[in-house]
Amino acid sequence: MVNVRDVEKVPVAKDIYKGKRIWAQYLITDKQGAKKFHMRIFTIEPHEYTPPDQHIYEHEILVLKGRGRLLTIKDGDRREVEIGEGDAIFIESNEIHQFFNDHDEPLIFLCIKGSPEIYRECEE
Amino acid sequence: MVNVRDVEKVPVAKDIYKGKRIWAQYLITDKQGAKKFHMRIFTIEPHEYTPPDQHIYEHEILVLKGRGRLLTIKDGDRREVEIGEGDAIFIESNEIHQFFNDHDEPLIFLCIKGSPEIYRECEE
Repeated sequence: MVNVRDVEKVPVAKDIYKGKRIWAQYLITDKQGAKKFHMRIFTIEPHEYTPPDQHIYEHEILVLKGRGRLLTIKDGDRREVEIGEGDAIFIESNEIHQFFNDHDEPLIFLCIKGSPEIYRECEE
Repeated sequence: MVNVRDVEKVPVAKDIYKGKRIWAQYLITDKQGAKKFHMRIFTIEPHEYTPPDQHIYEHEILVLKGRGRLLTIKDGDRREVEIGEGDAIFIESNEIHQFFNDHDEPLIFLCIKGSPEIYRECEE
């Protein structure tokens, strides 16, 4: 068990996040024995945005604090929604997603990510 | 996308919860296309507790509000911890778990649950 306040905010490991004012807290990962899905909290500083991201791993998101915008593109269908505290959002496999914080307060959200193991196909 | 405030609090479907003052909000499930893991929020009313539960599905929990106790038993090893806002907890496959709210305020936590699909073994 860990408490959010004791978990270091670190830069997001993925290369495309380099130099961004975006921080990750890795709460439940392989280290705790979680092999199938992982719990993280992301903080996007005021007037910062994430790079567009796309991968097979699904996301389940709960906005904890702040406001922002989420752009998604799925099969060419581009959608943009305002997001705020209490919003629960499902990002499908391979859905392009990009978060924008246009506000003066940090945008903080929980993000569960499926890990590679659960996307492996069984061999025939 | 749904907001927590718009998602009905319903009794927990599982039989062992019958008559308990415990409510579930199903935020992200099969209905949204989430086949691998599901996002729910549970509210345990003051001075109520969950029945002991055990299943192959892992849980990842984040306490959103209130305080309580969590009893876990794994391979005969019995542990009890105080839990409160911001605590992130991993419940392993087949770990017995039981939540107690001994306080005068509701205990509210997010709980991600792995769905059956990701626990199926590949056929040899």
